[in-house]
Amino acid sequence: MRDFSADHRWLSINTATLRGAGRLDTIIEACARHGIRAISPWRDQVQAIGLERTVELVRRHGLALSGYCRGGMFPGVDAASRRAALDDNRRAVDEAKSLDAACLVLVVGGLPGALAGAALTKDIAGAREQVQEGIAATLEYARSVGMPLAIEPLHPMYAADRACINTLEHALDVCDALDPLRSDALGVEGDDRAALGVAVDVYHVWWDPKLEAQIARAGRGRLLAFHVCDWLAKTRDLLEDRGMMGDGVIEIPKIRAWVEAAGFAGYSEVEIFSSLDWWKRPADEVLATCIERHRTAV
Amino acid sequence: MRDFSADHRWLSINTATLRGAGRLDTIIEACARHGIRAISPWRDQVQAIGLERTVELVRRHGLALSGYCRGGMFPGVDAASRRAALDDNRRAVDEAKSLDAACLVLVVGGLPGALAGAALTKDIAGAREQVQEGIAATLEYARSVGMPLAIEPLHPMYAADRACINTLEHALDVCDALDPLRSDALGVEGDDRAALGVAVDVYHVWWDPKLEAQIARAGRGRLLAFHVCDWLAKTRDLLEDRGMMGDGVIEIPKIRAWVEAAGFAGYSEVEIFSSLDWWKRPADEVLATCIERHRTAV
Repeated sequence: MRDFSADHRWLSINTATLRGAGRLDTIIEACARHGIRAISPWRDQVQAIGLERTVELVRRHGLALSGYCRGGMFPGVDAASRRAALDDNRRAVDEAKSLDAACLVLVVGGLPGALAGAALTKDIAGAREQVQEGIAATLEYARSVGMPLAIEPLHPMYAADRACINTLEHALDVCDALDPLRSDALGVEGDDRAALGVAVDVYHVWWDPKLEAQIARAGRGRLLAFHVCDWLAKTRDLLEDRGMMGDGVIEIPKIRAWVEAAGFAGYSEVEIFSSLDWWKRPADEVLATCIERHRTAV
Repeated sequence: MRDFSADHRWLSINTATLRGAGRLDTIIEACARHGIRAISPWRDQVQAIGLERTVELVRRHGLALSGYCRGGMFPGVDAASRRAALDDNRRAVDEAKSLDAACLVLVVGGLPGALAGAALTKDIAGAREQVQEGIAATLEYARSVGMPLAIEPLHPMYAADRACINTLEHALDVCDALDPLRSDALGVEGDDRAALGVAVDVYHVWWDPKLEAQIARAGRGRLLAFHVCDWLAKTRDLLEDRGMMGDGVIEIPKIRAWVEAAGFAGYSEVEIFSSLDWWKRPADEVLATCIERHRTAV
């Protein structure tokens, strides 16, 4: 396992961690100030300042993108909404490519309408079928431009509204179904990212008794991203009360050891949704804490 | 599948559903008033009015107990606390026996200290070992008095503080490990409850893509209890915002069909933790709604 204690060269900042800090250009400047080498931006943040401006900022600061957030949200109640989702996912692939992201992260979607508070169907098996069809269609396009797709299994508490793929096992079953031969995304020597893989976020999967085995099953090619934060023992909100690494109960170094034993050698990306705490703090304090915890608690 | 539309003979009320309605004697009188044939009381509610008084009330109203809540909470930071948990579980078995409950429900516990908001360890694998040891010891005693133990897998969002068994698959793995021959709890003709089985609560397991297969795996002998409520698309609290059947996204009839296809023929037990809504309403309104939804949405 890599030694993170001496520096933060393998730290990436998911820019949702700094939702309280203003626009993406401000966030990128703050990351650069702290010597951070990689980020993973969200589409709405990119759109707010423009894709070209984002590309320019990323290049000026020599930043890598450990991922791009996010595609997905495939299920819809009718053909038109599913078609619109596919079109939007093509645009997301293109943006990820413009930014040279390591992968496009897919939050696959749940029951249509549930995110707005009123599910239009309870058919989760049907939603899962639509998700698989949506990934298949997006994969075809993503493969043509060389952008790996990373299915992110979300915690089961988001099964209704955000993602109906809720375990690493299920995500890998979908990978096996759609890309049984683990096709190479790029065909570049030394870069064996698969065209379709997974994003492992400790917040979503830490509880799973099959986690170690499924990480091994994923293997190097399909482990496209590794996200960290922490599960607070007293979690007050289902979405926006994630903890800073070290403040909760997740054995993050143990999970990182499993991921690295399987061959993952990429960034450790900090993604903290926390309107209750971290989004209220100054960007410099958040980043300094991320760096310190990256060295001691990841 | 049994037809529930004409009456509510298979409805049981978990008395936590009426936490806002006062003491257990008041709750039992309300259930009797509504022609309810079965309840599942909580230990703290029983203790508040006394075990003997509870036994007397249950007999007077001819109530069955679809379960008794709850044993478990096995992990501890030292031998003394684990020993105390085992002693407490023996007492819970005895109380369940006095009340002639169908089973003692086990909420197995999570990381010691987490329920109080400060986990004393992050070792979830260790907690799971302690849980298995605790169930093994309790099973030996429960078998000697003929009280089936029902492991209740809890939703993964409770893995830290309430139960580190979070899928039906994991619960059944523990059953296989501790009671590989599916021993009969009672040896009574026509009653094939296993000594160790599971309580399937739709709230905890609805999201699981392996649910149907695992219910079939459990089979008639190990399906000791079936709990219903609903998952609200906009869930506002991790513990106390469960929905009334029909108000959320769970396909309850589909899951009941799976359970009954596996041979389960017991009560459908309504368990709703809802300080945000149902606990604020009068007992008669809650029970009338439970009865109506039992007939139309379960």
